[in-house]
Amino acid sequence: MATRSNDGNSLVHQAVQAVREYIKSNDLKVGDTLPGEGHFAGSLGVSRPVVREAFGALAALKLIDVANGRRAKVGAIDGSVIATSLEHAVATAQVSVREVWDVRRTLELRTAELAAIHRTDAQAAEICRLAEGIAQAGDDLDLRTQYDLDFHRTIALASHNNLFVQIVRAFAPMMEIAIPAAWHTRQAEEERQRILQLHHLLAKAIADREPQTARAAMDAHFDASIRDQLAAS
Amino acid sequence: MATRSNDGNSLVHQAVQAVREYIKSNDLKVGDTLPGEGHFAGSLGVSRPVVREAFGALAALKLIDVANGRRAKVGAIDGSVIATSLEHAVATAQVSVREVWDVRRTLELRTAELAAIHRTDAQAAEICRLAEGIAQAGDDLDLRTQYDLDFHRTIALASHNNLFVQIVRAFAPMMEIAIPAAWHTRQAEEERQRILQLHHLLAKAIADREPQTARAAMDAHFDASIRDQLAAS
Repeated sequence: MATRSNDGNSLVHQAVQAVREYIKSNDLKVGDTLPGEGHFAGSLGVSRPVVREAFGALAALKLIDVANGRRAKVGAIDGSVIATSLEHAVATAQVSVREVWDVRRTLELRTAELAAIHRTDAQAAEICRLAEGIAQAGDDLDLRTQYDLDFHRTIALASHNNLFVQIVRAFAPMMEIAIPAAWHTRQAEEERQRILQLHHLLAKAIADREPQTARAAMDAHFDASIRDQLAAS
Repeated sequence: MATRSNDGNSLVHQAVQAVREYIKSNDLKVGDTLPGEGHFAGSLGVSRPVVREAFGALAALKLIDVANGRRAKVGAIDGSVIATSLEHAVATAQVSVREVWDVRRTLELRTAELAAIHRTDAQAAEICRLAEGIAQAGDDLDLRTQYDLDFHRTIALASHNNLFVQIVRAFAPMMEIAIPAAWHTRQAEEERQRILQLHHLLAKAIADREPQTARAAMDAHFDASIRDQLAAS
């Protein structure tokens, strides 16, 4: 059968909540091992298949990790769950590409600002190196895209706020498609140089610990890049 | 057994990707019916239990909806998946409450600005009514919290960007706990009046179509409320 009864869904939901409550009340951290299905089946008075289904749902949400035949462990959030939601919402026209870019811009104006405040020296050097990498990659679009993704990811890391890191990471799959598409719309050498220059300005503002300049540079970068990405989409 | 073999996980993952690709390539929209498990089992050459497990994972992520014994339909994003990720990340100390509030503030400064630009007249009236409701609720904390949540949700709706709506909604479960806790820290009548005044200023700026004033009012609101919420947490 393709579906479950209301009762079945409700029991699975209860088991999901029980496992979440177990993690919380035992103050478990990422990588800590959970009791087996039998434990939860016994304590909840439900069948093992119900708990197995609950573990499947929890694994899909990355709340637990059951990979490689090991005992279930507490999972690390990694942005992929949000990424999946985003891609589904865009594919089914619940959210437009323009809406996604507005949210991304909003978040990255703040990561630029925070990075200028909190970046380590190593992160500042890495961000400058990646801006240089984007420029050096020339017409190798795969390499250029990888540098560009790493550039935004490293700025998010330098914000020292792990939630920004995870959400910015969630946009990466869409950027992997959008960055090369946008680059193709930039035929004039002058226009390409302007985009590269904006990456450098942003990297420099973060290195110089100038949050308002970093924010303004990210804003100018989005003005230019999003217009091209929307034109390409 | 509590876990699956690598091969099992990989087959389930393939089935998940196949269903997502089916939705995308057939341009399905929310509520459209999907083929049954048998269809995907046949076309992928895998067993029905593998497809059933994939459907379970997709349902956990709200990409499909299999409730009430119906045929699986394409699911609507509703913020709850992101909310679950957030709560797990905070419960397991992967993300701090302070980090969550910084992200929420960043997003809501922008929804306030967009609401002032795009709100309908009905939304402007509703936002003003909710600000009034917060003030009128007095010491009824449950009612006050409900008005407060609706106030932020309606501002997000008035932004006319559905991704902001979904992400702001994802913060609601944490706010249900944080809002009453913060209110308890506000003993002085004067301090409480200031918070209520900030809601009114924000509602008025949105009604008056003044994006920068709306943004500044949301900023002042967060300055006051987050400090209290962090003090209470």
